Amino acid sequence: MINIAILGGSGYTGLELLRILSNHQFSSVNAVTSRQYAGKAVTEVFPSLRGFYDNLFFSDPAEFKGLKVDVAFCCLPHGASQEVVEGLLESDNRVIDLSADFRLHDPEVYKAWYGEHSCADILDEAVYGLPELHREAIKDALLVANPGCYPTGSILALAPLLRAGLLETGSIIIDSKSGVSGAGRGANLDTSYAEVAGGFKAYKIGCHRHTPEIDQELTSVAGSEVNVTFTPHLLPVARGILTTAYAELKKTATSKDIHDVYLEFYSKEPFVRLLEQGRFPDISQVRGSNFCDIGVFSDEKKRRVTIVSAIDNLVKGASGQAVQNMNIMFWLKEDTGLRTPALSI
Amino acid sequence: MINIAILGGSGYTGLELLRILSNHQFSSVNAVTSRQYAGKAVTEVFPSLRGFYDNLFFSDPAEFKGLKVDVAFCCLPHGASQEVVEGLLESDNRVIDLSADFRLHDPEVYKAWYGEHSCADILDEAVYGLPELHREAIKDALLVANPGCYPTGSILALAPLLRAGLLETGSIIIDSKSGVSGAGRGANLDTSYAEVAGGFKAYKIGCHRHTPEIDQELTSVAGSEVNVTFTPHLLPVARGILTTAYAELKKTATSKDIHDVYLEFYSKEPFVRLLEQGRFPDISQVRGSNFCDIGVFSDEKKRRVTIVSAIDNLVKGASGQAVQNMNIMFWLKEDTGLRTPALSI
Amino acid sequence: MINIAILGGSGYTGLELLRILSNHQFSSVNAVTSRQYAGKAVTEVFPSLRGFYDNLFFSDPAEFKGLKVDVAFCCLPHGASQEVVEGLLESDNRVIDLSADFRLHDPEVYKAWYGEHSCADILDEAVYGLPELHREAIKDALLVANPGCYPTGSILALAPLLRAGLLETGSIIIDSKSGVSGAGRGANLDTSYAEVAGGFKAYKIGCHRHTPEIDQELTSVAGSEVNVTFTPHLLPVARGILTTAYAELKKTATSKDIHDVYLEFYSKEPFVRLLEQGRFPDISQVRGSNFCDIGVFSDEKKRRVTIVSAIDNLVKGASGQAVQNMNIMFWLKEDTGLRTPALSI
Amino acid sequence: MINIAILGGSGYTGLELLRILSNHQFSSVNAVTSRQYAGKAVTEVFPSLRGFYDNLFFSDPAEFKGLKVDVAFCCLPHGASQEVVEGLLESDNRVIDLSADFRLHDPEVYKAWYGEHSCADILDEAVYGLPELHREAIKDALLVANPGCYPTGSILALAPLLRAGLLETGSIIIDSKSGVSGAGRGANLDTSYAEVAGGFKAYKIGCHRHTPEIDQELTSVAGSEVNVTFTPHLLPVARGILTTAYAELKKTATSKDIHDVYLEFYSKEPFVRLLEQGRFPDISQVRGSNFCDIGVFSDEKKRRVTIVSAIDNLVKGASGQAVQNMNIMFWLKEDTGLRTPALSI
Repeated sequence: MINIAILGGSGYTGLELLRILSNHQFSSVNAVTSRQYAGKAVTEVFPSLRGFYDNLFFSDPAEFKGLKVDVAFCCLPHGASQEVVEGLLESDNRVIDLSADFRLHDPEVYKAWYGEHSCADILDEAVYGLPELHREAIKDALLVANPGCYPTGSILALAPLLRAGLLETGSIIIDSKSGVSGAGRGANLDTSYAEVAGGFKAYKIGCHRHTPEIDQELTSVAGSEVNVTFTPHLLPVARGILTTAYAELKKTATSKDIHDVYLEFYSKEPFVRLLEQGRFPDISQVRGSNFCDIGVFSDEKKRRVTIVSAIDNLVKGASGQAVQNMNIMFWLKEDTGLRTPALSI
Repeated sequence: MINIAILGGSGYTGLELLRILSNHQFSSVNAVTSRQYAGKAVTEVFPSLRGFYDNLFFSDPAEFKGLKVDVAFCCLPHGASQEVVEGLLESDNRVIDLSADFRLHDPEVYKAWYGEHSCADILDEAVYGLPELHREAIKDALLVANPGCYPTGSILALAPLLRAGLLETGSIIIDSKSGVSGAGRGANLDTSYAEVAGGFKAYKIGCHRHTPEIDQELTSVAGSEVNVTFTPHLLPVARGILTTAYAELKKTATSKDIHDVYLEFYSKEPFVRLLEQGRFPDISQVRGSNFCDIGVFSDEKKRRVTIVSAIDNLVKGASGQAVQNMNIMFWLKEDTGLRTPALSI
Repeated sequence: MINIAILGGSGYTGLELLRILSNHQFSSVNAVTSRQYAGKAVTEVFPSLRGFYDNLFFSDPAEFKGLKVDVAFCCLPHGASQEVVEGLLESDNRVIDLSADFRLHDPEVYKAWYGEHSCADILDEAVYGLPELHREAIKDALLVANPGCYPTGSILALAPLLRAGLLETGSIIIDSKSGVSGAGRGANLDTSYAEVAGGFKAYKIGCHRHTPEIDQELTSVAGSEVNVTFTPHLLPVARGILTTAYAELKKTATSKDIHDVYLEFYSKEPFVRLLEQGRFPDISQVRGSNFCDIGVFSDEKKRRVTIVSAIDNLVKGASGQAVQNMNIMFWLKEDTGLRTPALSI
Repeated sequence: MINIAILGGSGYTGLELLRILSNHQFSSVNAVTSRQYAGKAVTEVFPSLRGFYDNLFFSDPAEFKGLKVDVAFCCLPHGASQEVVEGLLESDNRVIDLSADFRLHDPEVYKAWYGEHSCADILDEAVYGLPELHREAIKDALLVANPGCYPTGSILALAPLLRAGLLETGSIIIDSKSGVSGAGRGANLDTSYAEVAGGFKAYKIGCHRHTPEIDQELTSVAGSEVNVTFTPHLLPVARGILTTAYAELKKTATSKDIHDVYLEFYSKEPFVRLLEQGRFPDISQVRGSNFCDIGVFSDEKKRRVTIVSAIDNLVKGASGQAVQNMNIMFWLKEDTGLRTPALSI
C-alpha cells in the first residue's frame, strides 16, 4: 500500500487526484492539505466525493513539517511549490510536483519566464514526468516534475516526427485550445461563466509560459534546437485540450508514411491511441480519461503535416499523468487505477 | 434629447443599458461612473461597445456630487444604492434604481430581509417599475424602483389570474430558473465556468430575497395576502429566466378559459407575448430582447394551472425594463430603442 | 462470469452500458446488436471505447433468434422492445429491459399512454427495477423493467414521505429538468446544438408518458392513489436530471423531522446520498455516477416541503441502474463496477 | 423601399436575414419561400420573430416563377441555388446568393470541389461580395456571391499583408474554429447537442470546400498564387468564427509595423475593428453583430506573424454581410440596419 499525501489539494488537480485514487487499489491517501479549507471535510468542498473520503479532512499545511509518506503529490501553484519540495525531499519523501517549478532544467530559462528560483540547484535532479519519453528515469526518480497540460498534448503530437528527424525544426506552429479548468479553481472574472460561455479567444500570444517547456522537450527529442510558435486559446468547455500542430517535412511523405512513424513510436504505449488514417480526435472522447488520442495528416504537395492530439487537461495533462508516474515509480502496472474509458457525452 | 447618467455602470446591467441605449435615438449617455474602472475607456472594459462609445470613460463616483441630468440609472448594489439616491433626488434628478433598495414599500419588510434602510422615509415615494401593473404611476414618478429579475417573470406569469380572483392564493408555487448573469459581473468561485458548466441546482430554498417583492406585488394585484413558495435555480446559461408557476383554481377552468384571461389582460402590452394554446416559451426566444413570453395550461381534473414565462433577466428583467420605464417617464413611444427581436440562436 | 448481450446497443444507453461494464470484473459482453451499424466495430461508432472493446462488432439483430446468455439488456425503443422480449424469455434468457414497455403493470394504462401492447399478458411478470423499493423481487426476476429516468429521480425524492404517510397525496407537484441525452442518440432538429444551447423550456406539460409510471410507484408506496402534476423541462446540458418536488404535509414538521425520515429510509442504500440539512444537490456532483443525491426542506408555516433530487439520467436513470439490477439478480455486491465518483467538472 | 424576397428562408441564414431586416427601415420583405414549411407562419417556425412578421407565411417555391422584386436573397444550399439564380436574373431580379454556387470564378475549380455547375457561363458575372475588397463592383452587380463564413474571417485577416506584399505566400496556415450554426439548421447526429457539448475537434483536414475560395481571393489580393493550409474546427458554441492565421514575413517587422499596415488598410471600413496592439478578439464581442474584430502580433525573431480575426458566422459571415451588400447595391448608408453592438454575454 502506497501512502500518499496531497499538498495544496483543494484545487482541481487535487480533486482529480482524489477522484482517480478512489479507484486505485494499491494506495491510500493519508493527508490532504489546504490553507484555505483547513479543518473542513473534503466532501464538503467536493460533494462528488461523498461516500469515498467521508473521514478525510483538509489539514493545515503548517502541520506537515517532517511529513513522511511514500509519495507526496504537490499541487501548489508555481513559486509556492519550490518552497516545500526541498523539505519534502530532505525528509525522504518522493515527490511528484504538478507545478511548473521543476520542469525546466535550465535555471536561466526558469528565471527568464518565472523569476528567481529558490532552489535552482535541484532543478537537474528532477525528472520530466512524461512517461512516453522518460519512463526509465521516472522509475528511480525522487522528484518528478509532472508536465504542463499544453506541453503534454504538444510534445506527444510532435515527438515521433522529431525523433525520426523528419521535420524542419524552425517551421513548427502549435495552435492549442484548452478548457477553462486549465486556469485552476478560483474566483476570477476572466473565467466566470458569463464571460466564457459562448466565447472563444486566443490569449498570451507569443508569451505563454508553457513555451519553453515545449521547446526543452522537443529540442531533447530532436537532438537540435527547436523553438516553436505556440498559441493557446480558451475553449468554452470545462475540460480538454485539442492541439493542432503544423510543421514542414524535410522531404515529402504521405499520410500513410507519417501514420507508420506514429504507429511504431507509440506501439507499446498504454495511453496513446493513434487513430486510423483520416480520423481525428475530439476532446470529448478522452474526457475524464488518461488517454491521448492522435490523428495525422500530410499534405504532400505542400510538404506540410498537420497533427492533432486530444487530452483531458486534468487527467493526462495533470493528475492522471501524476498517478501514471506514481505507478511507474512504485513498479505497479502502469494503468492501475487509470484504465477507464472517457465520459464521452 | 434625454440626458442620462449611469451610476455603477461597469456591471452587466450597465453594459446592457449602454448596449440598448446605443440604439435609442432620443437619449444621450453623458456619464458612467465606476469606482473600480474610473479613468478607463468604456470600450476597454466592454469591447463589444467599440465603435459606439469610443469617447466615453468611466468616471469616479465622487465627482458626481451635484450631478444634474434628466434621469440617472442607478446600477449600484443594494445598500450602496440608497446611499446616493436621496442626494440625486435632492438635486432634482429623476432616478431609475435597478437595485432592491426601493422596491419594498414596507420598511419592516425591508429590514427583515435586507437590514436597516438608511432612508426608509422615501420608500413610499418610489414607484414599482413594472409597466404592466403601474404604467400610470411611472409616468410622473421621480423615483422608479426597477423590479427584480425573478419578480418580473413571476408577477407577469401570475397577475392575470390573481386580478381575476381565480386562484387559491395559498397554493402558489413558483419554480424559477435563472442564467448566471443574474449573479452579476464579478469574480466568484460559485459562478466560475468550470463550476457551473454542465451543472444545475436549486439554491436559497425558502429564503431568496426576491420572495417578499413577489408577495408584495401579487398581494396588491390580488387584493388579499399572497405568500408564495419560491424556489430559484441556477441554469448553465448566461442569460434568461424561465418561471414555471403552479396554483390551484377556485373553480375548474379549461386551458382556453385561462388563455382568454391572459389574452384580455395583456392585449395592449407591447412586450408581453402570449403564446398560442399548447405552446410554451423558451428563454432562447427572448434572449437579448425585452419580451416576456407566456404559455398557459390548465389541468381540469386537478383544478391546477401551470403557467410558464420566459424573459431575458438582463433586459426585461433589468436594463430593458429600465429603458421602458424611462420611455414612459418621458412620454416617448414605450418601445423606443427596445423593438428588436431576440438573438434566438 | 456473467455472459451479456446488449440489444439495440448503438444508442446512449448502450454506450453507457459498455462504458460501465468495461470496469465490471464479473461479466463479459458477448454481443451487441444494432440494425443501423451492423458489421461496424463498436469503437468506430464510440471512439471513447477504443482500447476496451477493440474486437467487438455490432451484429445484425436478425442473427439473434435463439440467443442464449445469462442476461440480455434490451435498449430498444418502446414498442420495439416488446417485440423481442417475449422470445428472449422463452429462450430462457433473463432480461433487463430499458424501454418503457414493461414498466406499467396495468395493460389499460399502458394502452392509454402508449397504445396496444403486443404481449400484455406478461406485464405482470415484470419487476419494476428500482432497487430501493423492489430489491427482493429483483433478485429472482426473469424480466426487470428498468425505470425511466424522470421516474427514478421523482420516486426517490418522494417515496420516504409517502411511505411514512406524511403527505397530502393530491398536492404533489414535480418540476423536473433533464439534460438532452434523455431524448436519445439521433438526428433531430429539436435536440440539435444550435437549438438547445443557451435555451431552456418546459415541454409536454400535462402529458409526459413518465407520469403514469410515477403515479403507479408512488401509489404503491403510499398505499392510496397518487396523481402527480409533472412538468419536464429541457436543460442545456448533456446529462443529468434535477427534480424539485413540492407537496403539502398532513401536519406540520421541521426540516429536521423530514431529514430524519429520509435518513432512516435510505440508511442502507449504497447509491442514495442524503445531503446535510440546508444543502441541496447539483447534477454536476453525480455526473457519470450511479448516485442519487437528495436534499430536503420544510416550510413549517406553509406546511409544505420542497425535496430536490439529482441523478445522471444515463446512469442511475438508465444503464447504471440496469447494472445495479444485474448485480442484484446475480447475487453480486450491489455496487460492483458502479462504485466510482462523479466527474463533477 | 426595397422589395425583398428570400428564397429558402427557413434555415439560419433566413432567420438572420429576417432578424436584421426587422430593423432595416428602407426595405420590406415581401416573400419568404420554404419547401418544408410552405403554408406555415414564419413566427411559428421562428418564435423569436413574433411581433415582427406576424402576417408573413412561408410560400411554396414553385409559386415564384416570374417573381419580381428589387433583390432576392437566395439561401438555398449549393447546387439548389444555381437551379434558380439564372431564372431570377432573367426576370430582372438582382440576386444576392448566400450559397457557394457563384463564389468561384473558375468553372474548373468549381467542378473539382463541388461537381458540375449547371450554369457555369454566368460564373464570371458574379461579384464576390466582400465589401472590403470589392465595394465598387458590388454597387452595380446584378449577382452578388455572398462570401463563405470561413473565407470572410480568413480573407479579412490576411488581405492587408498580402496586398502590401509582405508575406511568403507559401507559408500561410489558417487554423479556424467555427460555431455549430455554420453547419446549418437541420437534423443531424453530428451536430446534436449531446455530441457537440463539451467537445471540440478538427474536421475535413486538407479538404474543406472553403479552401479554394480563400485561395482565389488571397491570390487576387496578392497578385501571385496563394495556396493556404486551412484547418476548420467545430466549437461548442452556436455562433462565431475565430481564425488564427500564421505566415512568414519576407523581412522582419515589429507588431507595431504590422498594426500600422492594418490601420491603414481598414481605416475607412465601417465593420472592421482593429484592436489595439497586444489585444486579441473574442467571438463573444461580435456575437449578433456585423463586425470583424482583428488583432495582430509579430514574432520578430521568427519573422512570423499571428493574426486573429473574429466574426459572427451568421452575420458578417452570412446574412449581415448580405444586407451590407444590399445597402451598397442600393446606395444606402452601408451600415443601415446593421449598426448594433454585439450581445457580448
